[in-house]
Amino acid sequence: MKLIIAIIKDEDNDKVSQALTKEKFRVTFIASTGGFLRSGRSTLLVGVEDDEVEKALDLVRKSCKKPDQEGQKRATIFVLKVDQFTQL
Amino acid sequence: MKLIIAIIKDEDNDKVSQALTKEKFRVTFIASTGGFLRSGRSTLLVGVEDDEVEKALDLVRKSCKKPDQEGQKRATIFVLKVDQFTQL
Amino acid sequence: MKLIIAIIKDEDNDKVSQALTKEKFRVTFIASTGGFLRSGRSTLLVGVEDDEVEKALDLVRKSCKKPDQEGQKRATIFVLKVDQFTQL
Repeated sequence: MKLIIAIIKDEDNDKVSQALTKEKFRVTFIASTGGFLRSGRSTLLVGVEDDEVEKALDLVRKSCKKPDQEGQKRATIFVLKVDQFTQL
Repeated sequence: MKLIIAIIKDEDNDKVSQALTKEKFRVTFIASTGGFLRSGRSTLLVGVEDDEVEKALDLVRKSCKKPDQEGQKRATIFVLKVDQFTQL
Repeated sequence: MKLIIAIIKDEDNDKVSQALTKEKFRVTFIASTGGFLRSGRSTLLVGVEDDEVEKALDLVRKSCKKPDQEGQKRATIFVLKVDQFTQL
């Protein structure tokens, strides 16, 4: 099990959200800010099986717009190992 | 040391919070949304010693209401290994 | 690669933010609450190379005010190993 923490721009939120939930990934959204002007970000938490990480990352990749300028980043993604996972 | 990331429903927030702080767990709350309708969730961060993980999870378990419908989930909990822990 | 999750008091937010971004660390801020009165906290996410962890922690340390009372904590910091890191 892995936990994907994806930090994306607010304007990509709906598209990323739809792409992930359509494929049955369960996503938690956290309003955030970042960058020099502390502009709007969404931090997404997605728990995924090890063999689904690439599929989920691919959906995020395809759903984020391309950066406006070269060198800019559109999304930052951390994948963490989950020691224990429980659903109640 | 472990970091528990628990995603619970807003309505379970007070009870989970009280149960954890009563037992001296320090909890950070983050307002979140999730599910198809992006309804209210709370994401809780709780740092715990390895041998206290089960105690903390049990408190969360007992403080969350049972799901209204079969198949529904009431809480999603990730336990992550902490590489380094500091308090200032 | 490591993910630093730092929970600080709201009033330390600007100083910590400036110290980190000045040194080119990219920081994501999440509004949070914690403690008995659920007072304002900021949860910071900072992705750093392994050999930059101490530098980043040092900046946080130096930018947080000292606790008002003995025994109080000013900041809680978790460092997690990152299994996979992607920027789009």
